[in-house]
Amino acid sequence: MQEALRQYQDTNKKLKGLGLAMFLHGWDSSTEAPRDAMTYRATQLGALSEMMYRLATDPAYEAAIETLYVHRVELDATLAHEIIKARKELVKTKQIPVEEFVAYNELMTTIYPVYVEAKQTSNYALYEPELAKVVAFKKKVLQWQKSPERQGYDIFLDDFEPGFSKAEYDWFFNTLKERLVPFAKAVAKKKLKYNRGFLKQKFPVDKQKEFAEYLRDVFGFDKNKTVIKESEHPFTTNNGTSDVRITTHYHENDPVSAIFSTIHEMGHGLYELQVDPALDQTMSGGGASMAMHESQSRMMENMIGRSRVFWETHYPKLKSLFPKQLGKTTVDDWIKHVNRVAKSFIRTEADELTYSLHIMVRYELEKAIFANKQPFETLKAAWDKLYKKYLGVVVTSDKEGILQDVHWSGGSFGYFPTYALGTAYAAQIYHAMEKDLNVEDVIRGGSLRPITDWLKTHIHRYGASKDPKDILKLATGEDFNPQYFVDYLIQKYTKIYEL
Amino acid sequence: MQEALRQYQDTNKKLKGLGLAMFLHGWDSSTEAPRDAMTYRATQLGALSEMMYRLATDPAYEAAIETLYVHRVELDATLAHEIIKARKELVKTKQIPVEEFVAYNELMTTIYPVYVEAKQTSNYALYEPELAKVVAFKKKVLQWQKSPERQGYDIFLDDFEPGFSKAEYDWFFNTLKERLVPFAKAVAKKKLKYNRGFLKQKFPVDKQKEFAEYLRDVFGFDKNKTVIKESEHPFTTNNGTSDVRITTHYHENDPVSAIFSTIHEMGHGLYELQVDPALDQTMSGGGASMAMHESQSRMMENMIGRSRVFWETHYPKLKSLFPKQLGKTTVDDWIKHVNRVAKSFIRTEADELTYSLHIMVRYELEKAIFANKQPFETLKAAWDKLYKKYLGVVVTSDKEGILQDVHWSGGSFGYFPTYALGTAYAAQIYHAMEKDLNVEDVIRGGSLRPITDWLKTHIHRYGASKDPKDILKLATGEDFNPQYFVDYLIQKYTKIYEL
Repeated sequence: MQEALRQYQDTNKKLKGLGLAMFLHGWDSSTEAPRDAMTYRATQLGALSEMMYRLATDPAYEAAIETLYVHRVELDATLAHEIIKARKELVKTKQIPVEEFVAYNELMTTIYPVYVEAKQTSNYALYEPELAKVVAFKKKVLQWQKSPERQGYDIFLDDFEPGFSKAEYDWFFNTLKERLVPFAKAVAKKKLKYNRGFLKQKFPVDKQKEFAEYLRDVFGFDKNKTVIKESEHPFTTNNGTSDVRITTHYHENDPVSAIFSTIHEMGHGLYELQVDPALDQTMSGGGASMAMHESQSRMMENMIGRSRVFWETHYPKLKSLFPKQLGKTTVDDWIKHVNRVAKSFIRTEADELTYSLHIMVRYELEKAIFANKQPFETLKAAWDKLYKKYLGVVVTSDKEGILQDVHWSGGSFGYFPTYALGTAYAAQIYHAMEKDLNVEDVIRGGSLRPITDWLKTHIHRYGASKDPKDILKLATGEDFNPQYFVDYLIQKYTKIYEL
Repeated sequence: MQEALRQYQDTNKKLKGLGLAMFLHGWDSSTEAPRDAMTYRATQLGALSEMMYRLATDPAYEAAIETLYVHRVELDATLAHEIIKARKELVKTKQIPVEEFVAYNELMTTIYPVYVEAKQTSNYALYEPELAKVVAFKKKVLQWQKSPERQGYDIFLDDFEPGFSKAEYDWFFNTLKERLVPFAKAVAKKKLKYNRGFLKQKFPVDKQKEFAEYLRDVFGFDKNKTVIKESEHPFTTNNGTSDVRITTHYHENDPVSAIFSTIHEMGHGLYELQVDPALDQTMSGGGASMAMHESQSRMMENMIGRSRVFWETHYPKLKSLFPKQLGKTTVDDWIKHVNRVAKSFIRTEADELTYSLHIMVRYELEKAIFANKQPFETLKAAWDKLYKKYLGVVVTSDKEGILQDVHWSGGSFGYFPTYALGTAYAAQIYHAMEKDLNVEDVIRGGSLRPITDWLKTHIHRYGASKDPKDILKLATGEDFNPQYFVDYLIQKYTKIYEL
């Protein structure tokens, strides 16, 4: 077993070394690499990917994982958890026939340009046959990977959020259907009244950057361990716990976009920063799951960043940076503006209230596809129908409809529901945090340190050393419960919309 | 032989993949990585270095090089040249006993902090015993590596500039001693008269950046393949021919510094940009040698960038960016300022005329050390004496004397002379270029494209596929000749100083 452990750690060390290259490449290529840089870099990335693949599929490495799996009760808890996950992945990968895996990887490289063209020309018909191939392969995967423990779509759900299945998600989305869909429709009938004059103003980027730096201090996003930069689409990336980077995108006509994308990405970033640094030396660093990560970004962005008390505290600073532009805008105007609800087609532009309804559409479609209840040829019609039903909008173009997301073209089924689940985690966690802290008082005090400290103790420090279900239970004292989320939204928007 | 070629190329592909990681790490850590990023990254870099070392010393790789070396006449010229160089390196590495190599590497990690402390406290005595160890090891290396072809200090000179030995360098430095030392002393007696008023002005960094972008266009430093950023010390780095990056450092009180460091680094960068892109797929990319690289940066910085015609052409643009600051400064004032000669202690701050004399001090000391003619205990006294003799200055502190350069602490003996040799190459190349082009007319025309095209055709495109001696001969039609350099300096400074 000692030899197996040595082999396991030795390979991981190399994989983590190569991971540095991938981290730096990703950051560089999204933020500043010159246009032609990829000409030569592509062959280097190919060589690195091949090295990673060979290391990860080295029979000696796999044998070491098997040996450690057999001896898992003798290992410390973190390592045992890691080995169980690694072995699960190993088994699942081996269940896919090699020639099918190769063919699928080829499909993955050819489908993307087709997807892009279809989206640009808003022509789903072009993309449909390619998507059909992905779905056909994914259905085969479910056959290969089925086990007494888990079958069908549950396999994909578990891939993205370990331990979660249709049972939990159905409960969650049914709760939304019952309580949130009618509520959102009621909200949509009302119109918020506020002074919109500032929407015609210009907000110079250097002043917006100054406010981003101010927010960095408010959220305690440690300058010695972080970078804030610009990119086309905002994102967070990190290399361990001591190098965490986010990007934002400034629009001169709209200061709101950069403010909330900065806060959102800082939410992700704070999670990575506050993982126990000892886990950097293991394979259990980083966030516990997709939804847990999203819970942290959305709590910061929406529950804290869009709260009344947050802007009562920080609007004066914003106004001091833009005295002319915000001269006639009161803090009430501002709060209404950043919390307005609008009927929308596009998930990524949706407001806090309706966002999870966009996800529900995708969840229902994916579930039906893999239960063989959704004929592939009527998928687009089904999409449009659900948008009408849950969001009250009539989709008029594929680009703003079924072609809006890239996920399916990458074979990522089971991914979407984690976005909504994360926002529901956030409400449950926030509710638990309020038992220990007066959250509004903390926000009013300026520094969010007591909040981020609480999150560190109850969520962040565990990294990926525990399953998200276990972390949620430790942090909140109960299993997942979607009521907190719906309660929070209804309470908040009843107030804002004076229902 | 086919199998050897496959093995050779396969290992190189991996080494180049890992090279991407090192490129990105170097760039990132010098320009924007947060302070604490190295905490975790250090172990990853350790893993990557070990992977590189294992690949480079893999017996199968070494055997492939030996096989290809035996068959070198059957290979194409570029590959044959590459294999001869690789095999030479292999032989030299193997001549050093492994245990001595390991001990030396340990010394290399411990000496650096001692050097830094000694420099900070200006205390050579602290550093002297460590430097003695380096010199002792280096003397042993000369014993291990001596061959009928090359002995003594010539071995180190050849390491940094293949094909160059004391014969060429002695001729070079003797020419400087005879003609340049007395000339520089004559210049030092005169004082340039010009309006220095602008030295008290502030030059906002954003306007300096605008001028750097203007220079980028003048030199044709292609935006699609390059990045210009800031760092503590300016440098150039690249990943193949399609991703070339330079840094500069802006000082609000002094616009001259950033202008010439930008031009200097663009000179290095243009070389890398113009190497034949086909060489990206070989081990013969990049510049031919240290001195050849320096010839390109110094030609751009000094011969072109500090010329009268360059500023007659571009000073109006600079003045338009700083109308208040340069209001009373004429183009003549400016040209005098950027070409003034000053007695100095510090090599990196030296002017064009005296720079090579700083190098001569180091060359003479190194040559004497490895000829066993320079007792180690009087090294510092010898340094100070040569500064008095060639530069006419009395060194009063170790920090500004023998401790100013980091090179010896890294074991780099034989490196310094390439800096001066490069400036001499530049003059010889410029002289050859003038036979094909009216260089001043080109500069006056704005775009330097005809000049960079000429350099591409005659120097850059070869990359490292030929030895610098061969490239110099191809480009200029003759072997190295230091007279061009001295003629150029004497002619230029006779005019400026009205001697």
